[in-house]
Amino acid sequence: MERHFDEELKELKNNILKIGAAAEEAIVKSIEALKDRDKALAQTVIANDSKIDELELLIDEQCIDLIARHQPMAKDLRFITVGMKINAELERIADIAVDISQRVLELADKPLLKPLVEIPKLTSIAQIMVKTAIDGFIAGDVELAKNVLMSDSEADKLRNLIQKELVEDYMVRDGSTSPRAVQLLLIARFLERICDHATNIAEDVIYMVKAEVVKHHPEKL
Amino acid sequence: MERHFDEELKELKNNILKIGAAAEEAIVKSIEALKDRDKALAQTVIANDSKIDELELLIDEQCIDLIARHQPMAKDLRFITVGMKINAELERIADIAVDISQRVLELADKPLLKPLVEIPKLTSIAQIMVKTAIDGFIAGDVELAKNVLMSDSEADKLRNLIQKELVEDYMVRDGSTSPRAVQLLLIARFLERICDHATNIAEDVIYMVKAEVVKHHPEKL
Repeated sequence: MERHFDEELKELKNNILKIGAAAEEAIVKSIEALKDRDKALAQTVIANDSKIDELELLIDEQCIDLIARHQPMAKDLRFITVGMKINAELERIADIAVDISQRVLELADKPLLKPLVEIPKLTSIAQIMVKTAIDGFIAGDVELAKNVLMSDSEADKLRNLIQKELVEDYMVRDGSTSPRAVQLLLIARFLERICDHATNIAEDVIYMVKAEVVKHHPEKL
Repeated sequence: MERHFDEELKELKNNILKIGAAAEEAIVKSIEALKDRDKALAQTVIANDSKIDELELLIDEQCIDLIARHQPMAKDLRFITVGMKINAELERIADIAVDISQRVLELADKPLLKPLVEIPKLTSIAQIMVKTAIDGFIAGDVELAKNVLMSDSEADKLRNLIQKELVEDYMVRDGSTSPRAVQLLLIARFLERICDHATNIAEDVIYMVKAEVVKHHPEKL
């Protein structure tokens, strides 16, 4: 019984890594589609989303089953319930990649407003934050989670910079740029929301590890 | 033991109603602050958010404790795990009310761009969707949840209408309106995100009820 539970828990971790990788791939591809004005790639991101939705449901069922059949003790129970929440965050991240891809479809036929510099930079930050947050969860590593929290203010700053430039240097100076500038502004905000989801995951990880420490090994705090 | 569990479950439901009411109040107040250009009210929404965060943690602990101590059977287990997810959604809704309030602080000193008609309408839709989704959860009522899903496309349409008007009738025609128009556009998108969270809750409710039906009473489908 004990070993069986460990094997199932390992399978759960693998599935969370899998949905995490799928979400990361969706982010990266949606911004590649933006850079290359590649409508087909944007469509691929949109079409793939249903597979990620299915994976989310599968992981959710796996968590409920694990709890119902094995009645895990506090530490494992907390890992599984946090896993359920992280699963939901990752599915939302993939949804945001779909939102970005839809903006790309609207922009692809129009001339490029400006060379893309900050948006790819924000994309890298978002991608690293998501990856680090998941790694922190799998390893129960508070330091990795803290790194994610520290990156969030950098993402906020970059998003504000992008927004300020689009409004002040484009929309205000030449109103005709507004339709395209608004799309880019929304994409920057979508990326920053991905960072927020990564932050949520990191906070859950810290809470998971600390609650365990507080409840069972207060001397370690 | 059995009765004790029922009492604790009732307490959990009450707390979820409480965080739901707090989130609803935050939405309504943030838009009241926008309409009345009331900075103090916007500040109140921002200041109240930490209480909602605390309530979220309390509910989360309550859920983990209920599962760990009572090892509930499938139906109750599913209710509690869905409760944990809904709890997170409601906390996010309150966070969005904070985002709106921050936009209000930026707008309050500038002249009103246009009379607010559609934004209060979208606020009502969002508020009703959140309320109905929570009611659906507490009552395990799929019909209420389905009502929420049906309202979401109405919210999407209204958000698109608001965005189109702000871009085409304001930003494009007179670039100098862009800083204010962008803030209103973001507020409309925030409201629509609240509707998305209500939709997530409704989907969780449908899934919770159906999974139970599929697993235990397939004849009822």
